[in-house]
Amino acid sequence: MSLSGLGLEPLPAGVLETLGRASTASITSELFKLGIRHSFMTGVDPLESNTRMVGEAVTLRYLPFREDLNALQPSSLPEHPQRKTIDNIEKGGILVIDARGSLRSGTLGEILMARLKARGAAGMVTDGAIRDVEGIRGVGLPTYIGGVHASASNTVHYAADAYVPIQCGGVTIIPGDVLVGDSDGVVVIPRKYAAQIADQAVYHDDIEVYIYERITGGDSLIGVYPPNEQTVRDYESSKKNR
Amino acid sequence: MSLSGLGLEPLPAGVLETLGRASTASITSELFKLGIRHSFMTGVDPLESNTRMVGEAVTLRYLPFREDLNALQPSSLPEHPQRKTIDNIEKGGILVIDARGSLRSGTLGEILMARLKARGAAGMVTDGAIRDVEGIRGVGLPTYIGGVHASASNTVHYAADAYVPIQCGGVTIIPGDVLVGDSDGVVVIPRKYAAQIADQAVYHDDIEVYIYERITGGDSLIGVYPPNEQTVRDYESSKKNR
Amino acid sequence: MSLSGLGLEPLPAGVLETLGRASTASITSELFKLGIRHSFMTGVDPLESNTRMVGEAVTLRYLPFREDLNALQPSSLPEHPQRKTIDNIEKGGILVIDARGSLRSGTLGEILMARLKARGAAGMVTDGAIRDVEGIRGVGLPTYIGGVHASASNTVHYAADAYVPIQCGGVTIIPGDVLVGDSDGVVVIPRKYAAQIADQAVYHDDIEVYIYERITGGDSLIGVYPPNEQTVRDYESSKKNR
Amino acid sequence: MSLSGLGLEPLPAGVLETLGRASTASITSELFKLGIRHSFMTGVDPLESNTRMVGEAVTLRYLPFREDLNALQPSSLPEHPQRKTIDNIEKGGILVIDARGSLRSGTLGEILMARLKARGAAGMVTDGAIRDVEGIRGVGLPTYIGGVHASASNTVHYAADAYVPIQCGGVTIIPGDVLVGDSDGVVVIPRKYAAQIADQAVYHDDIEVYIYERITGGDSLIGVYPPNEQTVRDYESSKKNR
Amino acid sequence: MSLSGLGLEPLPAGVLETLGRASTASITSELFKLGIRHSFMTGVDPLESNTRMVGEAVTLRYLPFREDLNALQPSSLPEHPQRKTIDNIEKGGILVIDARGSLRSGTLGEILMARLKARGAAGMVTDGAIRDVEGIRGVGLPTYIGGVHASASNTVHYAADAYVPIQCGGVTIIPGDVLVGDSDGVVVIPRKYAAQIADQAVYHDDIEVYIYERITGGDSLIGVYPPNEQTVRDYESSKKNR
Amino acid sequence: MSLSGLGLEPLPAGVLETLGRASTASITSELFKLGIRHSFMTGVDPLESNTRMVGEAVTLRYLPFREDLNALQPSSLPEHPQRKTIDNIEKGGILVIDARGSLRSGTLGEILMARLKARGAAGMVTDGAIRDVEGIRGVGLPTYIGGVHASASNTVHYAADAYVPIQCGGVTIIPGDVLVGDSDGVVVIPRKYAAQIADQAVYHDDIEVYIYERITGGDSLIGVYPPNEQTVRDYESSKKNR
Repeated sequence: MSLSGLGLEPLPAGVLETLGRASTASITSELFKLGIRHSFMTGVDPLESNTRMVGEAVTLRYLPFREDLNALQPSSLPEHPQRKTIDNIEKGGILVIDARGSLRSGTLGEILMARLKARGAAGMVTDGAIRDVEGIRGVGLPTYIGGVHASASNTVHYAADAYVPIQCGGVTIIPGDVLVGDSDGVVVIPRKYAAQIADQAVYHDDIEVYIYERITGGDSLIGVYPPNEQTVRDYESSKKNR
Repeated sequence: MSLSGLGLEPLPAGVLETLGRASTASITSELFKLGIRHSFMTGVDPLESNTRMVGEAVTLRYLPFREDLNALQPSSLPEHPQRKTIDNIEKGGILVIDARGSLRSGTLGEILMARLKARGAAGMVTDGAIRDVEGIRGVGLPTYIGGVHASASNTVHYAADAYVPIQCGGVTIIPGDVLVGDSDGVVVIPRKYAAQIADQAVYHDDIEVYIYERITGGDSLIGVYPPNEQTVRDYESSKKNR
Repeated sequence: MSLSGLGLEPLPAGVLETLGRASTASITSELFKLGIRHSFMTGVDPLESNTRMVGEAVTLRYLPFREDLNALQPSSLPEHPQRKTIDNIEKGGILVIDARGSLRSGTLGEILMARLKARGAAGMVTDGAIRDVEGIRGVGLPTYIGGVHASASNTVHYAADAYVPIQCGGVTIIPGDVLVGDSDGVVVIPRKYAAQIADQAVYHDDIEVYIYERITGGDSLIGVYPPNEQTVRDYESSKKNR
Repeated sequence: MSLSGLGLEPLPAGVLETLGRASTASITSELFKLGIRHSFMTGVDPLESNTRMVGEAVTLRYLPFREDLNALQPSSLPEHPQRKTIDNIEKGGILVIDARGSLRSGTLGEILMARLKARGAAGMVTDGAIRDVEGIRGVGLPTYIGGVHASASNTVHYAADAYVPIQCGGVTIIPGDVLVGDSDGVVVIPRKYAAQIADQAVYHDDIEVYIYERITGGDSLIGVYPPNEQTVRDYESSKKNR
Repeated sequence: MSLSGLGLEPLPAGVLETLGRASTASITSELFKLGIRHSFMTGVDPLESNTRMVGEAVTLRYLPFREDLNALQPSSLPEHPQRKTIDNIEKGGILVIDARGSLRSGTLGEILMARLKARGAAGMVTDGAIRDVEGIRGVGLPTYIGGVHASASNTVHYAADAYVPIQCGGVTIIPGDVLVGDSDGVVVIPRKYAAQIADQAVYHDDIEVYIYERITGGDSLIGVYPPNEQTVRDYESSKKNR
Repeated sequence: MSLSGLGLEPLPAGVLETLGRASTASITSELFKLGIRHSFMTGVDPLESNTRMVGEAVTLRYLPFREDLNALQPSSLPEHPQRKTIDNIEKGGILVIDARGSLRSGTLGEILMARLKARGAAGMVTDGAIRDVEGIRGVGLPTYIGGVHASASNTVHYAADAYVPIQCGGVTIIPGDVLVGDSDGVVVIPRKYAAQIADQAVYHDDIEVYIYERITGGDSLIGVYPPNEQTVRDYESSKKNR
């Protein structure tokens, strides 16, 4: 990940692994407890069901296409923002493209996805569309998208810059933020909260497994979900006995 | 279904079973003949393909989140509208949630779905989103949704009341109306028309099977679809010979 | 295809076959080089994954339902625009319905699809919805749609005319234009460019297979994608050696 | 109006004058009684407040811009659909442009409006945008629009054909239909109903003036609005005494 | 206002008068400080510029039109929800109609507005459209709307119930909440906060007048807006000297 | 304008004055001739009719509100992007705010507008909303907006950065681009084309005045609009004779 040039504090060991076991529903709820209300992208769906993704955000910003600007910035040059972010992404990086939610052209296709894969990227996320969708399925990288459209990006988009704050799916992302994806979609975790959220979300998921079993077994919701103090104690005991 | 407290006339025996064999396309067409033009929900899709659902509507109404109201109404209390409708739903009831078409948060997740299942509910329908989608697939209850979003409902929604008229997917639903779902989506049948529509829709489906065979066999549409009097007579004869 | 009455120049032999091997992403890019920026339909998705479709456009235009007009035009008459286009479609024709992007009713169902199939049509495309989706899957004709809705078309649509220029998915289609569909969706090729585009798109796809292998093998994007002159020469050599 | 070539039955004498005194609210209500539910354009507003307009529809249809088609159809030629409809419009004609509701470019500007005025047209209506809005105010022709945008139409639109059925603001218009505009917007009256609706709408407006006075004077709505039989009798008496 | 039947605590004397001098911008900011983030209606604009409105909410809820329900509920009956709320509104009440943001029909016209005026209502608010807009201007009651459409409400709406919690413009309103309108639009104040907000908003407006003068006089924003402690002290002194 | 720090080439003398006399319709058409198709903002309207504006773009970028980021960036600090751009704007600068088209909160109010005025700014443009609209009218600076909303910006927006490329109303703006506004709205002129476009647009407007007179005098459009060679010669002669 070319974020290495940005001088970010490394994440504590094991945080990404822990988050990789947490659900986006629990992470979103734990962020809400910290006062962060909007952390989950709207309108950005997994390309394949049962996808799991975790990694650090590498951001790319598209603006509306403008013929004079595009002429100055051929994608053959190494400093073209799209080529630069993709060609140099580091292991564990996730490319996130702000496409302003436009679904009227693709943002990238299978060749660029193949380069992300070859570099060891952990995924690709955009609130725009992708092209060559069958080819992209073949690449096998976790992919979250707004839709599919075969037109090349330069019909609608101009790749303006990279490694800057962006929005995607209505959520703000700072380079280096941690992204977690599952079948629901993608949640953005501010980098400084990643470790704290990891532990809380795993606990949250675990007690919900216990509650789910209680409910499946016929218990009423009342007192159990949300759990009252007794239910939390019962859960803690059950954990010891596992 | 806690509709039992509403003093509704019971449906005639066998009506739900008959409707369970009818397609939503035929039901919608038969309701149109009765002058009801808009009975099918727009933007509410089955979570799983090949889903079939039939049951009586139990309604829950969400309004936009407002911090002062939410504080007064913790979801831990039995009278919380969401908990009340779910915890007490009766066999054959279908929970229908008016989420005003907002897809910016979930309306419920797998634990509440598990409770619906444990109570014998016949399904869950919302024009909002659900969270924990993999978990909900695991519950195995017929589910019709506007989308998927991992945020908890209280990011966007306030559960205002229950057992009242609502809209869902642009259609008005009165508690006790009959809902039928198939792969196309969900149709709302006014309770008083349920028996009449059941018979007509099954007839409608049956003659369409006959017409489909004629068309597949090479017949022109003209005179056959829509069927003229001769085609109806031919269908009636063919039925006797089956 | 009833386009035979329109006096169009026949397509050169083999053009449709060649286009049947090309991707919509490459076709869209080649049309862009000819100055045609918007050729790919937005919001029109394949009903089934891995669909392939190629054929000539037969157009049908819907306008908003108006009760007085509908009464004058029963669908039982041979000259009804929907019945006329479907009943008489010729081998290789693709029915394209301009539904103004409305997803609030179906445009057709399984019986009309069965007639298209029986006539040898190559596919059906609409930016509206279809009804009887399970039945339509059973017909097995390539189908590209905006959505699914069980209401019959006359809830929302009036079939105004046929064999005229229309829009579908935001793209203009002239009767006889060539449509190609794959998993990305549907591209419209002006009839007079079909032969030229066919050759260019197949070349485009072929060099992208070569580039994909280079990238998968670890090459940087720079110089390879987009290919510089050396990369093009390397590709040409590799072709000779295959 | 170049509709004279279409062989329409002339409207009975005085119908346009009568409709010129009726409100669109009453016309819409009277059309509803005839079973026509959607006759009033949505999203098409008067450019100036206190505008009144009545005339016969001359239709012009735009489709999405396509570079190859535009090159074949320069607007300098007399047969260009936009120039043809505008240059030849007859006295009392209203140009109605189907712009598919797109507000991303203008459909025409002040010079074309000046030509409409010089020809004696009764107005201009579009669900797209206009350009040169100050100039158009200066022309002084009744104008109903979706919005304002300075780009020329060929950024987004291709003028496909004229004198055909179209939609505008979600309502279908047949050439020769009667359009009435006031401060609320524009209603479409099927030509054959124009005379009948004219009389009913004027009566409707007149009794509402009577009811308005009763309500302003302190009467309850009940029995008065909607008027029961007694109220209708009272109105009829009051008319005699005027 | 027929809210008198709901048993609400009366508002402290002078609260409505104080709020009548406050701007919606300041009220919204003060509610934000209490944790209420969404209190201002989106897409609901004053019909006339320089409108001021203050009063207590009387709520009316529309649902999508359904032919069978409408037949059961003629608007001639006193218990029809729309007639009931309007006919019986009390002095200072503001009718607020939840029209689900639909602009495809009117919600009411000049006669019903005249009745509101005659009863002493303080205003009318809807996120739907109104009809007879010129007539409504003539009535002269403060009016906040989503748009204008000449169709009667029963083309699109069914008046479901009254005096219940609703949404309007994306904000939840409880009967008896205080509504304040100015040229920006309408803010909803939870009834229990009305007195507290009134004082704070008037203070907020007052200090902003002081700040505005400082800025107009050439001061930098820094330290002045938002005001630091010194600026607040300077404001307090200036007040004494007025 | 704090653009002075960006090292831009000064505009040739008189360019802004010349552009100040040109219409946005002509400028947009001349940019189209240079290959720039999308230069005019969609959905950004003048607050007051008959507004004229010309100046150089100072850009400010908003992203979706995120509680943790907002806490780090109090608007009391001089380096806050919104305060920085406004407090330091130079004479002739136009503040342009990318609000992602969101109309669910204000972007600024009258005090910040007063500071822009005091600094000699030439205008303010946003595709978001403003608050304190009456106060802003009082400031008297040319203002182009997406709408009006009384909530403060931090309900929905986070001021992310300044002096960077942005979009507004669907058009890309580079700091230092020239903006021209009239009653139609706002056009963006790439800085390097400003001088060339100024001359062409003034010529364009001038010949259109001539054409307008011809059309008003009864001439047909054909040969006159668009002008053929003879019409251009006639215009040139008429100019000499003026």
